[in-house]
Amino acid sequence: MAEPRRWTYSRAGVDRSAVSGALAALLKETGHRPPASHGRLLDLPGHYAGLVRIGRETIAVTTDTVGTKTLLAEELASWEGVGEDLVQVNVNDLAAVGARPSVLVDFILCVTPDPESFSAIGRGIQRGLRKGRVALAGGETAVVPEIVRAVDLGGTAVGFFPRGRRPVTGARVRPGDHVIGIPSRGFHANGFTLLRRLLREKRVDLRRPRRGSRTALGAELLTPGRIYVDASEALADLATTHGLAHISGGGVRNLVRLNPDVRFELDGWPRPAGIFQWAQELGEIELPELYQTFNLGIGFVAVVSARAVPASLRALQKAGVRDARTIGRVARGRGVALPHLALEYTGYG
Amino acid sequence: MAEPRRWTYSRAGVDRSAVSGALAALLKETGHRPPASHGRLLDLPGHYAGLVRIGRETIAVTTDTVGTKTLLAEELASWEGVGEDLVQVNVNDLAAVGARPSVLVDFILCVTPDPESFSAIGRGIQRGLRKGRVALAGGETAVVPEIVRAVDLGGTAVGFFPRGRRPVTGARVRPGDHVIGIPSRGFHANGFTLLRRLLREKRVDLRRPRRGSRTALGAELLTPGRIYVDASEALADLATTHGLAHISGGGVRNLVRLNPDVRFELDGWPRPAGIFQWAQELGEIELPELYQTFNLGIGFVAVVSARAVPASLRALQKAGVRDARTIGRVARGRGVALPHLALEYTGYG
Repeated sequence: MAEPRRWTYSRAGVDRSAVSGALAALLKETGHRPPASHGRLLDLPGHYAGLVRIGRETIAVTTDTVGTKTLLAEELASWEGVGEDLVQVNVNDLAAVGARPSVLVDFILCVTPDPESFSAIGRGIQRGLRKGRVALAGGETAVVPEIVRAVDLGGTAVGFFPRGRRPVTGARVRPGDHVIGIPSRGFHANGFTLLRRLLREKRVDLRRPRRGSRTALGAELLTPGRIYVDASEALADLATTHGLAHISGGGVRNLVRLNPDVRFELDGWPRPAGIFQWAQELGEIELPELYQTFNLGIGFVAVVSARAVPASLRALQKAGVRDARTIGRVARGRGVALPHLALEYTGYG
Repeated sequence: MAEPRRWTYSRAGVDRSAVSGALAALLKETGHRPPASHGRLLDLPGHYAGLVRIGRETIAVTTDTVGTKTLLAEELASWEGVGEDLVQVNVNDLAAVGARPSVLVDFILCVTPDPESFSAIGRGIQRGLRKGRVALAGGETAVVPEIVRAVDLGGTAVGFFPRGRRPVTGARVRPGDHVIGIPSRGFHANGFTLLRRLLREKRVDLRRPRRGSRTALGAELLTPGRIYVDASEALADLATTHGLAHISGGGVRNLVRLNPDVRFELDGWPRPAGIFQWAQELGEIELPELYQTFNLGIGFVAVVSARAVPASLRALQKAGVRDARTIGRVARGRGVALPHLALEYTGYG
C-alpha cells in the first residue's frame, strides 16, 4: 500500500487527539479550589493564561516551552534564537489576555550543561526580556540525561492588569467587530516536529537559502518569533478592544479561543508566501492542515469594534507597530472562515 | 585501578560544579530590569523564590521539577505520588519565604500520552493542591519523543503575602535564635539519581520491604514529600519568625541560603535512621555527602527568636503540626555545623 503523499501534523508523529484525551484525564482530577483567602481563580477554560485575583490585583500566569525547535538549534549549534523564543512563547500568551508581563522563570532540562550554549541561551533570553519588558525572577536547571535526549527550554510568565485595565478575554467580541492582524516574522515555535521531519526526508540543505531568500534556511528557521507585548499594551486599555489572540499552535483556529459563539471571516489572512509557501510546497501540505498548524504571516490579532479601527491602528503606530492592518470581520455563526481559500474550521482543538 | 567504593552524588552522574558553571554563564546575560511600570523585582539571589512587587501586592514565584523520581514511578507504574510531588516541590519553596500559595501551573513532557498514568498523576496533583491550598491555573503538556526518553513533571507556583505579612527571607536571623525542625516523611524529590543508581547496582528488590519496615521498598521510596504550607502559614505572620527553610537538594546546607553571616549549630538534627540509614548503609555513603544530599528526617525548618519558641510550637500545634521540636540554635560564625556528627559545611553550593 502506498504511503499517503501529503504531510499532516499527525503523520509527523503528533497525535493531537491522544494528547487531548490524556490531558482531559488529568484535568478531570485537578479541580480543587482552595479557600478564598488563598486567592480566587477566575474561570477562563482553554484561554491563553490563568487568571487569579490576589488581594487587590489580578495576576495572569502562563507556561509554555519552545518544543522541538530546540532540536534544530542543537543541529545548527545556534542557541540565541531559541533563548529569545523561551520568553516569546510565554509573554505573547500574556499579551493575548491583555496582561502586562512582569516576571519570567525559566526551566532548562539538558543532558550536559555546556557553558557556551547556556551563555548563548542567556543572550537570547535577555533579548526577549527587553522586548517583552519582563525580568527573570528565577528558574530551574536540571541535568537529567536519564530523562532527556536533548535540551528542553520552557518558562512561566506572570503578568498583571494595571489599575483600570480589565482582562481582554474575547467575551465581548460580537458580530460587526473588525479583525486587525499584525504580521509575524516567520514561524513561531510551533510545528517544528513537522518541519524537521520534512527537512530530513527531503534532505534539505540548511546552509543554503530557499528560493526567494538570501538567508541560509537554517538561520531563517531559527529566527525567534516576534514579541507582541507593545501591541497588546497599546490596545488593552481601550474599551473598544474586545479580543486579542496569539497565533500559536493551532494556527487560525486560535481565534475560536476568544469566543466560540461568533464567526471570524478572515478574507485578508495572507495566502501562503515566503517561508510558508516553501513549507507548503516541500511537504505538499493541504491548505486546511497548513492553516491549522502555522501562522501563515499573521502572528497576533486584535478584535475591535468597527468604529475603533482607525484609533486602534493609530495607537499601534504610536507604540511602534506600523504594519498592522484589517484582515477580516466578525459575523453571526461559529468558527473561523477564510473564504478566499475556501477554508472553514469549527473549533480550536 | 579499583573503583572508589563509597558513593557520592557526582559519582552517580550529577556534577554540581558543571551545572553551576553553565548556570552562571546564563545568569550573567539575563539581568534585564524592565521599567517600574512592569513591576519591581526584589533582589533575593539564591533564595527559594523570586519576589516581585506588582501594584499593591508582593508576588512570589518559584519553579521546580520532580526530577528523576519520575523514573522510579515509571518503573513501578505508580504515578500518584510523583503527581503530589509536583505540587510539593513548588509550594514548599513558597512556604520557605513565608508566601501563601495561590496557584500552580504544571508542565509535563512525555514520550506518549497515556490516559491511565495521566489520570493517576492528576489524582496526585489534586491531593497536593488540597494540602498546599492552591489551585491549578493552567499548564502545558508536550508529547516530545525526540526530546525526552521518559516523563518529566514540573511546575511553577505563585504565592503572595497577605496584608500585613512581610517576606521571611532570613535577613533577620541572628545569633541566639533557635532552630525548630519539622520532620520529613522520607526522601523529598531529591537525590533520586543517586538512589536509583544504588538500587540498580546492588540489585535491590523493590517489591520487598527493607529491614525495619513493612512497606514494599518501591512504595516507600515513592511516598510523596510532606507539604509544609500549614507550618509556614502558622509562623509567617509572627514577627519573631526570622527564617524558614525547605530542606531540598543540598540537605542541611539549605540553611545557608537564609543568612550566610551566621552559624547554624544543629545538635538535634537526627542521626541516620530508617530509610536514610538504609540508603547510607547500601551505598556506604560518607556522612558529609549524606547530609548534603538528603534531609535525614527534617524537611522544614523555622528560625525564631529564643523567647518565641514556646509560642511558635503552640502556633504549629494549633495548625495541626504536632511533631515540631527544637533542633539547634544560631551562633556567631558562618555555615552549618552538626557537632554530634562532627560535620561542618561552609556554603550552600
